[in-house]
Amino acid sequence: MKLLRYGPMGQERPGLLDEDGVIRDLSAHIPDIGPDQLSPTALAALAGLDTAALPIVDGAPRYGPPVTGTRKFIAIGLNFADHAAESGAPVPEEPIVFTKATSCIQGPNDIVMLPQGSVKSDWEVELGVVIGTTARYVEEAKALDHVAGYVLINDLSEREYQLERGGSWDKGKGCDTFGPIGPWLVTADEVGDVQSLGMWLDVNGQRMQTGNTATMVFGVAALVAYVSRFMTLEPGDIITTGTPPGVGLGMKPTPVYLKPGDTMRLGIEKLGEQQQSVIAWRP
Amino acid sequence: MKLLRYGPMGQERPGLLDEDGVIRDLSAHIPDIGPDQLSPTALAALAGLDTAALPIVDGAPRYGPPVTGTRKFIAIGLNFADHAAESGAPVPEEPIVFTKATSCIQGPNDIVMLPQGSVKSDWEVELGVVIGTTARYVEEAKALDHVAGYVLINDLSEREYQLERGGSWDKGKGCDTFGPIGPWLVTADEVGDVQSLGMWLDVNGQRMQTGNTATMVFGVAALVAYVSRFMTLEPGDIITTGTPPGVGLGMKPTPVYLKPGDTMRLGIEKLGEQQQSVIAWRP
Repeated sequence: MKLLRYGPMGQERPGLLDEDGVIRDLSAHIPDIGPDQLSPTALAALAGLDTAALPIVDGAPRYGPPVTGTRKFIAIGLNFADHAAESGAPVPEEPIVFTKATSCIQGPNDIVMLPQGSVKSDWEVELGVVIGTTARYVEEAKALDHVAGYVLINDLSEREYQLERGGSWDKGKGCDTFGPIGPWLVTADEVGDVQSLGMWLDVNGQRMQTGNTATMVFGVAALVAYVSRFMTLEPGDIITTGTPPGVGLGMKPTPVYLKPGDTMRLGIEKLGEQQQSVIAWRP
Repeated sequence: MKLLRYGPMGQERPGLLDEDGVIRDLSAHIPDIGPDQLSPTALAALAGLDTAALPIVDGAPRYGPPVTGTRKFIAIGLNFADHAAESGAPVPEEPIVFTKATSCIQGPNDIVMLPQGSVKSDWEVELGVVIGTTARYVEEAKALDHVAGYVLINDLSEREYQLERGGSWDKGKGCDTFGPIGPWLVTADEVGDVQSLGMWLDVNGQRMQTGNTATMVFGVAALVAYVSRFMTLEPGDIITTGTPPGVGLGMKPTPVYLKPGDTMRLGIEKLGEQQQSVIAWRP
């Protein structure tokens, strides 16, 4: 299933995308798509619905983030060896974990606003893992049982805040609009092998990132198991799993960063596409 | 006002502590103490209630965390110069920001469980700031207008996970039970000058930490303003503001860490006291 939330910001309604690419409304069946709708039982109930009988949503509504109520938005750093190299960092011996503020989450095509005075904002196409059931000290072999599905994420990053302001990376990762998610939450059964998905990102029509989840240093199962040893993962929590090479920070001879007027397009195989316009900071 | 939440874990009810130290129930007036109850208007409505007419809560119920619905639990590192020194770190030029997983939040006197295999778990008495109204790029002079009140926090920390496992400190700060908060949310008006509060922490009856919020490197107003430039602070968000010297990591000649059977007691002037028993990890 491709679950989604559509409608104006803050007023999203639950829906799904049917096999013909038509949005169908789920409001009669679930209040929203959040922690209580992500268990295997809840997802099975949705999968059992007669899709053709669900109301068709007319027009082309805005997509919101496909899951709401996310309590933790955890991110993995330098999880592609070639991205670590372009960042001038060694391949980590164990996963690098940091946190994106949940207040940065937005819909997949919402405008991205540069932080006030920002000159080093950067893009990162990433695979996001949406937790379906509580995961605490889970073994890698069982870790995927706790995953409801997958989402496309642009892990926007302000490199000065992340790397030059002292302390953790968290300062540069959670600015408002820095977490576009969606368009869909694609359930794990529909994704199949999550470690063989092509990834790409264009800025102003130029291909900047090309990658595949096959070359992650730590795969999804390893990451869920690993993070669950340091904190309890709850339904609706999201782990974004790192980016392949081609970010602005890694451009030669000099880094290239986002500026007002830029357009990003990105996608991951089976998970859909996003497009964001970049604007300057405004109150 | 001293606002609180009392009752079994997950079933807490809202209350307040009256001038005689008696818990009064607020369930008839508010559904809980969360983001929607922290605005100046909402707090003024509570302050206008006739306390003597509120139902008395009999017995000695468990205290839960005094605020629920916290979306971000932000922490400041090395914010006391003498603690930085004992940690072998320089005094930061600007605040160090990291994140505690919200899933670590618990009541002030709930049991603290060491993570599986943990040998370096440590204590940190801290002043917590509870955000009352949305704060985004606020000036330091206006920052305290966004604060609903203050709480006592034990910022439990696993030093190996924090410092020896690569990446950010977040790995060692958000383990289950690592965020005791309370007993009360003391409203800002009742606290008065937040930069002159005595702080202390005992382990097994021995005084380990003694400090005062007067010696913070960055004060509360500066921290709220600072963090609000990197992420939007929302009602119910908590910033825990760093610890004075005397943590286990800083003990000479060798660090001293928590072990099963230990008891911590801690307090901050005007904000009450906590007591936690330490147990080994269990499923």
